[in-house]
Amino acid sequence: MGKTEVTLGIDIGGTTTCFGFVDREGTIHAESTIDTQGREEFEHFLPRIVDGIETLRTSLGDQIEWKGIGLGAPNANYYRGTIEAPPNLNWKGIIPVKSHFEDKFNIPVAITNDANAAALGEMKFGAAKGMRNFIVITLGTGLGSGIVVNGDVLYGHSGFAGEMGHILLRNHERKCGDGRSGCLEAYVSVTGIRRTITQLLATRNEATPLRNICFENLSGEVISKAAVEGDVIAQEAFEYTGQILGEKLADVVLITSPEAIILFGGLANAGNLIMEPTQRYLDQNLFHIFKGSVRLMFSELMNQNAAVLGASALIWHELEKSSNAS
Amino acid sequence: MGKTEVTLGIDIGGTTTCFGFVDREGTIHAESTIDTQGREEFEHFLPRIVDGIETLRTSLGDQIEWKGIGLGAPNANYYRGTIEAPPNLNWKGIIPVKSHFEDKFNIPVAITNDANAAALGEMKFGAAKGMRNFIVITLGTGLGSGIVVNGDVLYGHSGFAGEMGHILLRNHERKCGDGRSGCLEAYVSVTGIRRTITQLLATRNEATPLRNICFENLSGEVISKAAVEGDVIAQEAFEYTGQILGEKLADVVLITSPEAIILFGGLANAGNLIMEPTQRYLDQNLFHIFKGSVRLMFSELMNQNAAVLGASALIWHELEKSSNAS
Repeated sequence: MGKTEVTLGIDIGGTTTCFGFVDREGTIHAESTIDTQGREEFEHFLPRIVDGIETLRTSLGDQIEWKGIGLGAPNANYYRGTIEAPPNLNWKGIIPVKSHFEDKFNIPVAITNDANAAALGEMKFGAAKGMRNFIVITLGTGLGSGIVVNGDVLYGHSGFAGEMGHILLRNHERKCGDGRSGCLEAYVSVTGIRRTITQLLATRNEATPLRNICFENLSGEVISKAAVEGDVIAQEAFEYTGQILGEKLADVVLITSPEAIILFGGLANAGNLIMEPTQRYLDQNLFHIFKGSVRLMFSELMNQNAAVLGASALIWHELEKSSNAS
Repeated sequence: MGKTEVTLGIDIGGTTTCFGFVDREGTIHAESTIDTQGREEFEHFLPRIVDGIETLRTSLGDQIEWKGIGLGAPNANYYRGTIEAPPNLNWKGIIPVKSHFEDKFNIPVAITNDANAAALGEMKFGAAKGMRNFIVITLGTGLGSGIVVNGDVLYGHSGFAGEMGHILLRNHERKCGDGRSGCLEAYVSVTGIRRTITQLLATRNEATPLRNICFENLSGEVISKAAVEGDVIAQEAFEYTGQILGEKLADVVLITSPEAIILFGGLANAGNLIMEPTQRYLDQNLFHIFKGSVRLMFSELMNQNAAVLGASALIWHELEKSSNAS
């Protein structure tokens, strides 16, 4: 029996780093996690993840042929193979993560940010199979976006294209982590809807159980549950979030004309509560020549380890590009 | 002596159609124009342009080898090879212009809108030589944009990507030709600055020679001349136009991360009057990771027949893609 070809997908998150060996069909053959321990420096993280990978590799015996490593991480630069001053991690300066892994494992390595990895995961294993122009919007703590153009990720000149979370809403005052005011992700994200709820609690006077929950405990699940149970404040928060997202997506369609926009992450778990108003405002604002050309969808990887699948898809995609080029 | 390889670039405008034979270095060997006569139907336009092309071709004798035809036209769809319900022309429905020209001349034909052709013209012959990620903004009657990603035009799923002129400004009331309110091109274009002047004449009471000029005569040149001569209304109009353009360009950089943004067309002729405020507001609004990665520039084709060069560049680009693929 032939060996199964696999790649290793690694997702470096602020608290946990997940990694797993994934075949071409998207089956995860083995997976594991380590604490990222964001307070320690990269020099200490590296030997710990290498140990974890070697243990996982050993567990698979000789059934697999290991083809490469894909890494998804915040502030990762695809062109330079670096992670650059990541938020939530104490890694200093510009770290050549790609070459560190290449040196350790002597195997092809590619790196990009988590939203771009998510886009490649959808293209290879999820909702965007067969598509060549689409966008994945990740709605978690912030808002990330991975844009695929002509079957490849739009990296742009700098390698940092697709930072839709920092589109500025004019005359909007919420502070963003970057020090500016009015960034889209301060409105459209799990954190964003929490801020909207809080603002509504300040300006409105309806009775709502949400008044008994402190800011830090206002999770997407809590807000969704309240909306489903008919709470008007929670429902209005979803309406407002969907309005801002739908309006901005209509602008983005003018620029890149995707076949689909795929919603992913914590706020997407709210299902129709977020989909319905987003679709409605997208339709209302869409320039006429794009009517009927773009679908709003959910990720098809939300019940799986999407981050590992996306990171694996990144290196599968690179390996295919080089085999097509040769 | 070998024959010179040329392509024919055709620019179909609302009033005039320009066409010329252009070599690989961007020299126009012969050019001509016909009235588009937008009120007549395409069936009558086609034999007239064919006649004009044949006459021009004959004038060049046997010194040239004719490799293909590139067409720039409003509402042209690259994928389908069509012109679809163009504004300012009485051409009905969806016209398969590409196949009409292929049938007539039995030669490769490509078609796209004028802003995409302008982008390819800059890449092949102008300010974007050697660039793989950049944007051309055409500031004429409206605002067009041609976006190049990875060395190719961003057409998107529909073929209509790059319609930046219809990005919506929220809480802005100017009607656009498409029936909506707040489209970017109602503010940032020759028509846009004319509307800004008119609005300032209504809301302010400074004496200005612009009060003696009717709306239809407020050309870009008239407004520029007033600004240079110190007219505060004209200067404020450029400031306002540059503010809106710079702010929106900062959003667009987040999405596509271009190496350069190239300004072209009537309003770009105002030079530093439009460049300085646009640059200032772009810098003020640019997300920090893009600082230093994007240049604002002028077209290098503004004193030439840029529309013919752009249309020619389109088919040169297609011919190179097919020769690279084979």
